[in-house]
Amino acid sequence: MTLVIDCHGHYTTAPDAHTAWREAQVAAFRKGEPAPPYPDISDAEIIESIEQNQLRLIRERGADLTIFSPRASTMAHHVGDQAVSLEWSRRCNDLIARVVRLFPDSFVGVCMLPQSPDAGLEASIAELDRCVNDLGFIGCNLNPDPGGGHFRHPALTDRYWYPLYEKMVELDVPAMIHVSGSCNACLHATGAFYIAADTIAFMQLIEGDLFRDFPTLRFIIPHGGGAVPFHWGRYRGLADMLKKPSLDTHVMKNVFFDTCVYHQPGIDLMARVIDNRNILFGSEMVGAVRGIDPTTGHYFDDTKRYIEALDITETERHQIYEGNARRVFPRLDALLKGRGL
Amino acid sequence: MTLVIDCHGHYTTAPDAHTAWREAQVAAFRKGEPAPPYPDISDAEIIESIEQNQLRLIRERGADLTIFSPRASTMAHHVGDQAVSLEWSRRCNDLIARVVRLFPDSFVGVCMLPQSPDAGLEASIAELDRCVNDLGFIGCNLNPDPGGGHFRHPALTDRYWYPLYEKMVELDVPAMIHVSGSCNACLHATGAFYIAADTIAFMQLIEGDLFRDFPTLRFIIPHGGGAVPFHWGRYRGLADMLKKPSLDTHVMKNVFFDTCVYHQPGIDLMARVIDNRNILFGSEMVGAVRGIDPTTGHYFDDTKRYIEALDITETERHQIYEGNARRVFPRLDALLKGRGL
Repeated sequence: MTLVIDCHGHYTTAPDAHTAWREAQVAAFRKGEPAPPYPDISDAEIIESIEQNQLRLIRERGADLTIFSPRASTMAHHVGDQAVSLEWSRRCNDLIARVVRLFPDSFVGVCMLPQSPDAGLEASIAELDRCVNDLGFIGCNLNPDPGGGHFRHPALTDRYWYPLYEKMVELDVPAMIHVSGSCNACLHATGAFYIAADTIAFMQLIEGDLFRDFPTLRFIIPHGGGAVPFHWGRYRGLADMLKKPSLDTHVMKNVFFDTCVYHQPGIDLMARVIDNRNILFGSEMVGAVRGIDPTTGHYFDDTKRYIEALDITETERHQIYEGNARRVFPRLDALLKGRGL
Repeated sequence: MTLVIDCHGHYTTAPDAHTAWREAQVAAFRKGEPAPPYPDISDAEIIESIEQNQLRLIRERGADLTIFSPRASTMAHHVGDQAVSLEWSRRCNDLIARVVRLFPDSFVGVCMLPQSPDAGLEASIAELDRCVNDLGFIGCNLNPDPGGGHFRHPALTDRYWYPLYEKMVELDVPAMIHVSGSCNACLHATGAFYIAADTIAFMQLIEGDLFRDFPTLRFIIPHGGGAVPFHWGRYRGLADMLKKPSLDTHVMKNVFFDTCVYHQPGIDLMARVIDNRNILFGSEMVGAVRGIDPTTGHYFDDTKRYIEALDITETERHQIYEGNARRVFPRLDALLKGRGL
């Protein structure tokens, strides 16, 4: 038996009161006033928001478990300051924890971090610790460009990030490299910023030697790794030009791509060039692209169909659906083993 | 008979004196001094730089004609000011014109534009006119991010660019959308900035309605269109979410991708999802990735091999090698017809 684990789900349908509070929080910050109290949100509201959306789609499409994190586009680390980002992160992560408690068989939590463009990583490290040790989360989303669209932060290989990586290694949790909303009008969030940031992140990892310093650190680059599989020859060639080891040893022991690529030819390419052990099933739903593909009659983000159609062995499919996720998220593996799975 | 037209070649092997002058020009600008006189470069130097590099490779690989432009990574529009950019552009374009005069059967010119982050487009429009009308060039390279890596320029659909587009339409020349070197340490030029910028440009075109205003304007997005073919489902879905027409009418009457994708699976994907009429043969050589692919024993950028291996009809291959280029570059078509080709 294979568990179908979706490594990339965001709580995009959080209750309105949560979203309204965020707006009030930001408005208060801009006026120099304290944020209003966070609203009471009932279990019933959360249950409704999940059952009518994520859970309905998960059941229709046949997934078992979603690795669930706060909505990526509204992390908005570029808004406010460290304190604003921290309070918003805690509220978002606490809400994820409530979803997981209400639907423990269907969701497991991944946190957002309270990054802020001018801040260090102390608050992010503390929040990661809280989410893993107190809330039972299994990983985090790390924003490589908390400025929101101008790529002014140090490369992921820079020592700026090392204290966070040390904490990740200590906790044995991976990070999904995931930017948030764009504050750059020329970068559409899900169509430009996300895919560009994924691609840029991978190239940073080629240029550096991060995994020599952190051999057990693990990153998931979402959206199929941005442009990387399509340009796999370019990246293999650039590693060679930069006198780096081949990508399989230099980067791909530590980097994984999800399957948020919304058509069969893209998934076919990915399975052809990327080792199946580096691919994690993901859908990013309810998410970036919500419509039905007129060429197939199915939802663009029903990525399970593409995996089903791959000409690979059942062993390989098991890796993509379950095996790789359990390896990349050891705390998930332990949790499932504790349930006899 | 099919002419093999490489739509994407840069003069990356220009004589040392040309490159040294650029360094002196920039140094003088920084000191507030006038640039030194441009050196005498003999025909023999140019011939040697071409025969030992571009022409040798073209002959070895079996291309006929290269659409040739100044080295992209050293356009460096972010360096200096409008006057510096203008003088550098003229020198670079004049050098391309000399190559074309020396090897008229093998090269045809495309110009760089004297863009500058804080400048308008007047100088670019004048230089485009000079290159087309005086030097016989057939197109231009347009840098969507002349700031060099922070994406601060208006989107390509912004009215900022319209005067240039009007000139392009008047002259009936296309532009290749091509950024230059990165001044952002976290963006590697050929591995991150180029591919990200290609992807961003395409999404800008989806978000806007540029080709409603300019129905005959034509852009080539290089490097296979960045991430676009790999994420073709995402872009089709986003167009739908944004209530735009389908991509084939909204964008793909005016946008073309080259084949600078350095492995067979990438080219296979491109031919599978992108209409063959939108694909132009290109190699970007002598260029971004110079090595030999250990998995094939051939140069990564020997892209003709990938096109040869495509399972398409000879009519389709003819389009990719020649037909599409003659359609996208009408001045090339006229030039070839004038030669009885």
